[in-house]
Amino acid sequence: MHRILLTVEYDGTAYAGWQRQITGLAVQQVLEESLERACGHPVTVTGSSRTDAGVHALCQMVHFDTDCTIPPEKFPFVLNNILPPDIRVQAGREVPGGFHARFLTSGKTYTYRILNRRHGSALYRNFLWHVPVPLDTEAMRAALPALLGTHDFAAFQAAGGSAKTTVRTLDRAELLREEDRLTLLLSGNAFLYNMVRIVAGTLAEIGLHRIPADAFARAIASGSRLDLGMTAPPHGLELTEVRYPEAAFSDPASLRWHQP
Amino acid sequence: MHRILLTVEYDGTAYAGWQRQITGLAVQQVLEESLERACGHPVTVTGSSRTDAGVHALCQMVHFDTDCTIPPEKFPFVLNNILPPDIRVQAGREVPGGFHARFLTSGKTYTYRILNRRHGSALYRNFLWHVPVPLDTEAMRAALPALLGTHDFAAFQAAGGSAKTTVRTLDRAELLREEDRLTLLLSGNAFLYNMVRIVAGTLAEIGLHRIPADAFARAIASGSRLDLGMTAPPHGLELTEVRYPEAAFSDPASLRWHQP
Repeated sequence: MHRILLTVEYDGTAYAGWQRQITGLAVQQVLEESLERACGHPVTVTGSSRTDAGVHALCQMVHFDTDCTIPPEKFPFVLNNILPPDIRVQAGREVPGGFHARFLTSGKTYTYRILNRRHGSALYRNFLWHVPVPLDTEAMRAALPALLGTHDFAAFQAAGGSAKTTVRTLDRAELLREEDRLTLLLSGNAFLYNMVRIVAGTLAEIGLHRIPADAFARAIASGSRLDLGMTAPPHGLELTEVRYPEAAFSDPASLRWHQP
Repeated sequence: MHRILLTVEYDGTAYAGWQRQITGLAVQQVLEESLERACGHPVTVTGSSRTDAGVHALCQMVHFDTDCTIPPEKFPFVLNNILPPDIRVQAGREVPGGFHARFLTSGKTYTYRILNRRHGSALYRNFLWHVPVPLDTEAMRAALPALLGTHDFAAFQAAGGSAKTTVRTLDRAELLREEDRLTLLLSGNAFLYNMVRIVAGTLAEIGLHRIPADAFARAIASGSRLDLGMTAPPHGLELTEVRYPEAAFSDPASLRWHQP
């Protein structure tokens, strides 16, 4: 039996999210059905991140086990002939049997994109949150450093999160602006359920001067979701990078699994 | 009666092109139907460029006549409530009765986007032509200056073009590269039918060393389509800018109409 790790890009617009569920078609299901056709046996896949409906992934990391003879690096070619065009496999490699796409991650980067102009975009409407009122980028930028470091982010999760601890470490919280496009980059060891969308929504409300600029610091101190703003819509969000410690590929048994 | 000029952005993926036709839904038709609902009378619109099926526009310029009382700058708000999300009106203004969106243009810019990596993009599949084999960007760049200036571009058009003259002037032919994305920018006074897609396809074949690097110069000299390469697919193409002389807005009667 071989454990294979795939890098999977998808446009989440048409899907009910990553995870298989009763209501709606999930990316996981489409990928598992394509793998069953390719491998000739039922396949269950495990993804690094359970992205919500409408959320995109540039590199969802996915592992599964198979005894079929397809060389690992050929999986993208085989699967891209079977998958719909809004799911593309970018890479495949074999990993040790103890590797786990979700429980061994050491970090992730998410990108949240905002279009800040009067009228929405026809071309990139599924990838940008349209905010028609001018945003105060300086106020938004000033709010971000409070997120950096290790904090209890209990206030930063939606109901339905299953995390055992709400302590997280963020090492990047950056807002780029290019004309009318704002790009929020957040990197950390792990994220709570809806955390990036709550940060993006709060940040926009700071930029609209509807919420005090120290909202992030307050919410970290209070632990109260009420100190934060709205949850930004899913379609502006993209899972951009997933990181693993080197040992995950060489000696995964030496690592402790974590429930992110 | 007022003549109104709209700036219209559209994602061409779902449409049979700009121009109304029997087969398939055209952007023009959807816009005219929305204008009829907004204005309360039938409206015929004239666009600056007849983009093909699958081709996108960041700024199709569109004029029409109406006697309705909607202030010109309010048309985007009114129409964006009626139009489907893949068509967005970005601006509206009144222009003199002698203005013409198509026959008074002084220049246009088109953008053609290529994704040059092994596997295609799930996220931007409708906006990038996927070329899986590595392209020699230097060879492509070296080929472009031959296009600049005033030439007879008779070789650079598909059958079905209606141009009276095939002489055109290009003042920009630039290839940008950012990682695996190539962006071709072409500016000129006007373009022949399929001209940008023929340039993009030929350029890619130059980058694959399938066609000599002096193909553009040869084709200009010979006038033969056979000296050029393939027509690149429509979905990589975007109408990016349309220019008018200042007099088009102040004294259009002083200008000669041209059939581009």
